[in-house]
Amino acid sequence: MHGRDPGYILVAHGSGGKLTGDLFRDLFLPAFRNPYLEQAGDQAVVPLDGVRLAVTTDSFVVSPLFFPGGDIGRLAVYGTVNDLAVGGAVPAYLTAGFIIEEGLSTEDLRRVVQSMSEAAARAGVSIIAGDTKVVERGKGDGLFINTTGVGWVPPGVELGPARIRPGDRLLVSGPVGDHGAAVMARRAGLDFEVEGLVSDTAPLAGLVQALLAAFPGAVRCMRDATRGGLATVLVELATASGKAFRVDEAAIAVREPVRGLCEVLGIDPLYAACEGRMVAVVAADVAEAAVELLRTYPDGQQAMLIGTVAEGPPGEVLMRTVAGGSRRLELLEGEQLPRIC
Amino acid sequence: MHGRDPGYILVAHGSGGKLTGDLFRDLFLPAFRNPYLEQAGDQAVVPLDGVRLAVTTDSFVVSPLFFPGGDIGRLAVYGTVNDLAVGGAVPAYLTAGFIIEEGLSTEDLRRVVQSMSEAAARAGVSIIAGDTKVVERGKGDGLFINTTGVGWVPPGVELGPARIRPGDRLLVSGPVGDHGAAVMARRAGLDFEVEGLVSDTAPLAGLVQALLAAFPGAVRCMRDATRGGLATVLVELATASGKAFRVDEAAIAVREPVRGLCEVLGIDPLYAACEGRMVAVVAADVAEAAVELLRTYPDGQQAMLIGTVAEGPPGEVLMRTVAGGSRRLELLEGEQLPRIC
Repeated sequence: MHGRDPGYILVAHGSGGKLTGDLFRDLFLPAFRNPYLEQAGDQAVVPLDGVRLAVTTDSFVVSPLFFPGGDIGRLAVYGTVNDLAVGGAVPAYLTAGFIIEEGLSTEDLRRVVQSMSEAAARAGVSIIAGDTKVVERGKGDGLFINTTGVGWVPPGVELGPARIRPGDRLLVSGPVGDHGAAVMARRAGLDFEVEGLVSDTAPLAGLVQALLAAFPGAVRCMRDATRGGLATVLVELATASGKAFRVDEAAIAVREPVRGLCEVLGIDPLYAACEGRMVAVVAADVAEAAVELLRTYPDGQQAMLIGTVAEGPPGEVLMRTVAGGSRRLELLEGEQLPRIC
Repeated sequence: MHGRDPGYILVAHGSGGKLTGDLFRDLFLPAFRNPYLEQAGDQAVVPLDGVRLAVTTDSFVVSPLFFPGGDIGRLAVYGTVNDLAVGGAVPAYLTAGFIIEEGLSTEDLRRVVQSMSEAAARAGVSIIAGDTKVVERGKGDGLFINTTGVGWVPPGVELGPARIRPGDRLLVSGPVGDHGAAVMARRAGLDFEVEGLVSDTAPLAGLVQALLAAFPGAVRCMRDATRGGLATVLVELATASGKAFRVDEAAIAVREPVRGLCEVLGIDPLYAACEGRMVAVVAADVAEAAVELLRTYPDGQQAMLIGTVAEGPPGEVLMRTVAGGSRRLELLEGEQLPRIC
């Protein structure tokens, strides 16, 4: 895994970790190079006839299609809407591209589509265009969905890692790893034995808009922690901002069933996917108030401050462990949870 | 195939024919219902902060990935840009979502991405956001690509099947079936034996903009003939406009190698995919001039008028055959050319 490029694509290239980043930097970015893609955020913000248009795309290949707390359809809608929301955009429209393996039951497809419809209504977006392709048995895996989201960024909203300053605080909107644990449990057939393993799949726009309205200018940057989990987002943000982050493990909530399952499977919950958790970097003087505000929302009841931004080596994320030691968080080298979203 | 719903998805549901339409009307449209999706065009035109935004999405699952005259990457870029162009939109941005099967050679991926880059440059669009997922061996087929396109519709441009009037003429920008024949030939291993089988994959924006500039108001509606070929587009347009079309088989150019291969494989070239051919419905008084104009462009040298719009049963497309008879064109019931795009 380390060292030489094997010359072909590994499952780990889709992990959201180090190899995914390498592929982007070495292959996609040089070919497609433009200033928007170079932002390398969850979304691109581009000018269109006077509007600041926000655009994001995601393909979903989660296995299985249905899992505790959600399904591929809900995941696709919220995943894409959340990428827009955390960039400060107002989500407006979605497209949906379906790649179906021959033999998928029409009833399963109907359930997924119904779930997308409900999620879109809850998130306040319309699904305005779609496409359906079918591949032969053995050439796909039930159903893959691409959702692309389009929204607009209101005047005055400026977010991004370049705005992160030493002294800023790191805020997370709730416990981490729920989605990853729920999918892995279902995949391993353990979800009937471990109670309380439920994906956190949910829309983030409400929390985001509340923060932006209450603390304009003091919110520096937001991300949703998906593939790669909280740790990956922290390393990416620290790298993109050129700052060092200091994190306190004791402050990071991981629900008991999630922690238990991760121990059984040998997974680090800090790298397990969330699908309804926001990481925000906020100015120190509003940090406590921001947490209090988020806690007034059902999806933000366990919001927490987990660390600070420091002067220091760019991209370094040091975590003080519960045991009292210090651990450096890195991008995953290999693949921990394939096809988690 | 006829009659009862088998309860699961068939390859033919992705053919672009009758079953694809059934799936859209019976499953997707009721769940996602909104006025934009109901337009059921190649693209949706939606308002966004005062701009008429055009959005379209397509997933590409063509097999093989490389074929005479193109590859999946070029196809994805031009296919999506063309959907925008024929709707009268100015294409501006693309997103690209990659679903890679583990084991794809990095070199093949690099070739496809390079091809996308060149196509995007030629079409004048930027690829601004992307996503990469990897599935295990046997759960995909090399590479699937979703491209979603965003553009804007200039003031005054109003196109659509509702504007089609009896007496209008049907125009096609060149010979049909080239893409379908090229892919099928490569798949059957015949492409080294039949010379001149080359996909017509090309951007249409130049031809479209020329027509719109020269004949504002007289261009009623345009479509690009892709999956399902010329015949499918004609039936869809006749149905959407509530008019009857009269078509002359002798006027429809099919290149000799394409005709020959289709005969060998038992394929009707009128249902074979094109990827760089435009069907336009134009007012009768500009029809001849429109053809002359298109013929001044390299990609329009063999533009032709193939028929007229008549009062008559809505959706009826009657073709006068070369043999002197009459044949009614219908949507394909089954699957003729799986995974052609």
